Amino acid sequence: MKDVRTHVGEVMALFREYGELSRTDVIDLSGLSRSTVNQRLTSLHEFGLIREIGGAESTGGRPSSRFSLNRGRAVLLTADIGATGFVAAICDLGGTPLAHRRRTIDVWDGPEPVLSAVDACFTELLASPEAEGLPVWGVGIGVPGPVEFAAGRVVNPPIMTGWDGFDIAGWFSHHGAAVVVENDANSRAVAEARPRRHDNLISLKVGTGIGSGLVFNGQIIRGSEGAAGDIGHTRAAVADSADPLPCRCGNVGCVEAYAGGWAIIRDLALLGVHAADVGEVVALVRQGNLDAVRLVRQAGRVLGDAVADLVSILNPESIIVSGRLSDSDEVLLSGVRERVYQRSQPLATRNLTISVSQLGEFAGVMGLALITGDRIFGSERIEELFPETADRPA
Amino acid sequence: MKDVRTHVGEVMALFREYGELSRTDVIDLSGLSRSTVNQRLTSLHEFGLIREIGGAESTGGRPSSRFSLNRGRAVLLTADIGATGFVAAICDLGGTPLAHRRRTIDVWDGPEPVLSAVDACFTELLASPEAEGLPVWGVGIGVPGPVEFAAGRVVNPPIMTGWDGFDIAGWFSHHGAAVVVENDANSRAVAEARPRRHDNLISLKVGTGIGSGLVFNGQIIRGSEGAAGDIGHTRAAVADSADPLPCRCGNVGCVEAYAGGWAIIRDLALLGVHAADVGEVVALVRQGNLDAVRLVRQAGRVLGDAVADLVSILNPESIIVSGRLSDSDEVLLSGVRERVYQRSQPLATRNLTISVSQLGEFAGVMGLALITGDRIFGSERIEELFPETADRPA
Repeated sequence: MKDVRTHVGEVMALFREYGELSRTDVIDLSGLSRSTVNQRLTSLHEFGLIREIGGAESTGGRPSSRFSLNRGRAVLLTADIGATGFVAAICDLGGTPLAHRRRTIDVWDGPEPVLSAVDACFTELLASPEAEGLPVWGVGIGVPGPVEFAAGRVVNPPIMTGWDGFDIAGWFSHHGAAVVVENDANSRAVAEARPRRHDNLISLKVGTGIGSGLVFNGQIIRGSEGAAGDIGHTRAAVADSADPLPCRCGNVGCVEAYAGGWAIIRDLALLGVHAADVGEVVALVRQGNLDAVRLVRQAGRVLGDAVADLVSILNPESIIVSGRLSDSDEVLLSGVRERVYQRSQPLATRNLTISVSQLGEFAGVMGLALITGDRIFGSERIEELFPETADRPA
Repeated sequence: MKDVRTHVGEVMALFREYGELSRTDVIDLSGLSRSTVNQRLTSLHEFGLIREIGGAESTGGRPSSRFSLNRGRAVLLTADIGATGFVAAICDLGGTPLAHRRRTIDVWDGPEPVLSAVDACFTELLASPEAEGLPVWGVGIGVPGPVEFAAGRVVNPPIMTGWDGFDIAGWFSHHGAAVVVENDANSRAVAEARPRRHDNLISLKVGTGIGSGLVFNGQIIRGSEGAAGDIGHTRAAVADSADPLPCRCGNVGCVEAYAGGWAIIRDLALLGVHAADVGEVVALVRQGNLDAVRLVRQAGRVLGDAVADLVSILNPESIIVSGRLSDSDEVLLSGVRERVYQRSQPLATRNLTISVSQLGEFAGVMGLALITGDRIFGSERIEELFPETADRPA
């Protein structure tokens, strides 16, 4: 029985990657025989996952020879939760947000109030015209902390007080769909890597805090405890040459204690400049406030020192910076670039690009939709979406 | 036709992983139907890749129901080349070295003399009783530098003068078998990770120089230019607080310039203690020479500082140290452990183990045999080994 599921999944994966394919494309890309491909395309077409496009009308019951992913067959509910706010979105099966809501929260309030606010947005979004009548096939939740991916739980977060071990997947089980919980930086990394077809990419999220997502060999690196990527709480190089500054995680000398948005706000206050949040820091930079420009560039250098070693060790093809502090007119990025090109090995930077994300506030939810799609359309779940498929002969 | 190849490869992969399996085991582990499994087992048995073990004699032409990998069906030629010497070995298809040779070389002499010496050993080994009459199905060559894996070439090596772009795979093509070229630290990492079933592991090789191999999500991380893992030429934390020392790669402040075997020999000489090579450094440590003990422990600390950040970012489950300097009675390791547990994030070290390799000088060739086996028995190559298979109906 595995044959059927696997092959439907394999063909579905091609449509998720390419969007639109002819019958011949599918045969060439999959290496499957024509008769097997015909059978799989018929299954996908019957279940409404692909649609005929262009070409002649079908004759004799067989679909015509060009197909596209039916992105509107169902919807995915996604929420990208940060320390101080979240974006909730309904996405189509291709990962495109159809409608969204933005809310201010405080992640320190703990899981119940935050997740209640997220689910209230989901209820609103499901009543919107974009989602009307469509089934929910998956839920993807991004959180700013380490995640035990298989269990859908946050584990030992440095900053998310009260979230440790909380069953986030269970909270959303009433939607009757697969629930995926993912670290926010990991979901951004997938959103950046997949459309570029970059197999080796580092995504940095710099806002109030600092996180990173690592995609290598085309897969997220989560590490053995789901703790991989937490660059914000690694030791800053500058912490070795002077008294290390205290971090909000309880340690001292973390990169975040020098380069995080909260640290910049702290340092501006010491100079008598008030900024209520990272948005105001960015506004000050854009207004040309010299203290703000200097502090953000210096934050970029501290971050760059940490990233430089990572570049030498992991040899990514691109580094994409997102998060609200990346809106600072290249000031942050110039500090990062300065240190990476100065400190990394020449071979590792030869073809490296360092750039600001173009996905804006939707990077998180787009990545979550892709990761949730991977879970749904992986061979283990196809059967659950289409129980009839499993009964077909191999 | 792909179906046949893929499924033979899938079943073969199970025998490579488990060694010995019943028919029912194969059905359970593969998810394939009984009739498909019977067909694949018959193919593998006919081609001599698996053998019947125990059980009753076969009746009616069908093999009995328990099988083991026929490790002796063919041999793999492997050579693990270091800066000052290599180990060449004939391995069986399970990756076990059957016979080996050890030679002293100087990698700075360039590729021709070194690879000629390797091939001379292969000729000797092929004439040995262990290999007599067996076909060569693969050649695996490990080198102490960055490798463009797909092309089988060394690229931009920091220390391997004259090797840049040299066609190593072509040099061994006269064996008429697949040739795999791999970084030496990567092959060690596979040799450590695979038998432990560790999906997230860092392998450190500390000898004259320092390298690392990273296996995450069960795969080698090579990076976009094959330069990943070169921890020896990242910047040492101590280089930020004093005048950085020059490195043999031409840069300054590299980890190797403080913690590599050559740097310890240099520092011993400054104290009037002579050591001709890393073996003599280890002998001094074992004799209790205080200068040698202090310098090796300090080297461990410098290495530990670099590894600590890597642990925080990648969250491996184990770190395995090999190379001649790891023979120093835990002195090197104690320095590494001190800094990793001091500087890494607590979550990332909760279940981390740091230990010395138990594979000795064979770690490299064992990993090369496994990686070469992956290439040979991957779905793209099965067909070449068994042309008849491709003609069978799915």
